[in-house]
Amino acid sequence: MSLTEIDKNEVDIVIGALHSDLTSFMNSWKPLFSGFHLIIVKDPDLKEELKIPEGFDINVYTKSDMDKVVGSSNSNMFSGYSCRYFGYLISKKKYIISVDDDCVPAKDPKGFLVDAVSQHINNLTSPATPLFFNTLYDPYSEGADFVRGYPFSLRSGVPCAVSCGLWLNLADLDAPTQALKTELRNSTYVDAVMTVPAKAMMPISGINIAFNRELVGPALVPSLRLAGEGKVRWETMEDVWCGMCIKVVCDHLGYGVKTGLPYVWRNERGDAVNSLRKEWEGMKLMEKSVSFFEFLRLPETALTVQDCVLELAKALKDQLGSSDPVFAQAADAMAKWIKLWTEANPSI
Amino acid sequence: MSLTEIDKNEVDIVIGALHSDLTSFMNSWKPLFSGFHLIIVKDPDLKEELKIPEGFDINVYTKSDMDKVVGSSNSNMFSGYSCRYFGYLISKKKYIISVDDDCVPAKDPKGFLVDAVSQHINNLTSPATPLFFNTLYDPYSEGADFVRGYPFSLRSGVPCAVSCGLWLNLADLDAPTQALKTELRNSTYVDAVMTVPAKAMMPISGINIAFNRELVGPALVPSLRLAGEGKVRWETMEDVWCGMCIKVVCDHLGYGVKTGLPYVWRNERGDAVNSLRKEWEGMKLMEKSVSFFEFLRLPETALTVQDCVLELAKALKDQLGSSDPVFAQAADAMAKWIKLWTEANPSI
Repeated sequence: MSLTEIDKNEVDIVIGALHSDLTSFMNSWKPLFSGFHLIIVKDPDLKEELKIPEGFDINVYTKSDMDKVVGSSNSNMFSGYSCRYFGYLISKKKYIISVDDDCVPAKDPKGFLVDAVSQHINNLTSPATPLFFNTLYDPYSEGADFVRGYPFSLRSGVPCAVSCGLWLNLADLDAPTQALKTELRNSTYVDAVMTVPAKAMMPISGINIAFNRELVGPALVPSLRLAGEGKVRWETMEDVWCGMCIKVVCDHLGYGVKTGLPYVWRNERGDAVNSLRKEWEGMKLMEKSVSFFEFLRLPETALTVQDCVLELAKALKDQLGSSDPVFAQAADAMAKWIKLWTEANPSI
Repeated sequence: MSLTEIDKNEVDIVIGALHSDLTSFMNSWKPLFSGFHLIIVKDPDLKEELKIPEGFDINVYTKSDMDKVVGSSNSNMFSGYSCRYFGYLISKKKYIISVDDDCVPAKDPKGFLVDAVSQHINNLTSPATPLFFNTLYDPYSEGADFVRGYPFSLRSGVPCAVSCGLWLNLADLDAPTQALKTELRNSTYVDAVMTVPAKAMMPISGINIAFNRELVGPALVPSLRLAGEGKVRWETMEDVWCGMCIKVVCDHLGYGVKTGLPYVWRNERGDAVNSLRKEWEGMKLMEKSVSFFEFLRLPETALTVQDCVLELAKALKDQLGSSDPVFAQAADAMAKWIKLWTEANPSI
């Protein structure tokens, strides 16, 4: 899909600013962000003034905006990487694209700049195929199709709700893995998009992501956090947990989640070894979460994303609430998020 | 994995000969087949003598061998593309690799010859991860690992039973698709192997495939055939149906199915338009098959592959046997296959 086919008015690019100087980040993205509206949300813990170059169509939101919209007692839910969720909450656009501020555009194996914005929109505007696996990858991409034996009744696919992009250079590993393999960098450019099959569990990363806000906006829910997490990706649990929730909601409502292209180039940040303690804490929580999600079945009465998230919160509290306080807190945060979302978006 | 790490005595390469002159096919594969034992099974309908170049370690099997092993009343089950199943039956090796005789070795984007044999064995000898999706593709391949959030308890994976390779040039499309898009050729080399998640349905193609015969041999079952099918891939249903069965058996027994690398280069063969009628017949059968497989649950008492195939045959007869005679015949063929397999392989 070329840029000209995108209605740029339907897209918000949401950037969480964890660092004050966005000059080189913004300039690297300039050719791709041009003509799009940007929402920059400043981490409420960041004290310095933001440095943003000129030439972009931007709204910047800070802690005072959060205080106004959700109340000052709630704005701490947007600290660190979670600040972007405020952008998701206040956007009015159909599509959201969000990229970490330590990522720059990647190049494909032929040396061409990867247009991550177009690729994400392309993923979201073409159908997804979660009900049957296509060995030939995305059947809707140019030069591809459905493999022999793919049922014709399933070839129209389902709406795609989420597009998960990938990472060159620094892959999205956890702290123990990166600490063990300090030299490991991702240099394999896999030229494919695929739909993750229904019922498969996956840890969606928030580093390079896009979604259809009208379809699943409220499922992008900030909720499960380790104490003090959120400034370093190694130790972030929130996006992974949120991703598990989104996948369950999409499966229940009949939407698809795609993964693969577009790649972004991740620059170095943080020290994996320093993050080890917190990450192990997160890993223990993941083990409990996996069996929770594996056996979770949302009731048929859950017809909207809001219903699904509330049912998920209820099941979480019932089943894991007493095993670790972080789960009970997550359940409360999910219920609170739905309340905030409904107030901010009465029509979705 | 380099060739030196493979115990070549554990591998049989099975080639179904649908054409009498295998000279150029064999010569193209010579550098990759060298040192491996080959089983060539001649299509029982093929009248001409086989032409096979020298320099290979080969056993050739023909209709008279089939008659001896399974009886002359059964040897018609091995006609056309199905002749390779005779090779699966009489092999005594742990791993089987099978490639159609219109495929030659592919080249990767850097121009290097793809070693399909090593790649298949590599896929089969490293674990599979069907229980949780890894967005970074095969975590066991060089330079890769598990993505952040991947549960540590699932990182040891499960045994890989099947490796499905892909196709450059002529992709494995069905007749209607290829007839509609006569110029469509697959030129995208996707540099990835992945495990297809548990519970996902997929149409496994027999064109370029490998499997662990000790784990799932009897599940490679020739059973569902259209009248007169089997000489042209466009119109072949048998491998697709067999693939659906294998996937269900692997899911039930806790084995993995991988797809992706290695690619082979498929040469032109057949006329898609001529095959349209039969293919549509197959497509109607697929629609019924999909809902059958979607809701199929093998009983917990099915502990071996043979148990699973017999249970599958029973369910098929019960649920679809009266809707189309081809399903009842397939169920009978599956039961017969298990009997033949058990006679030929008392220990597996």
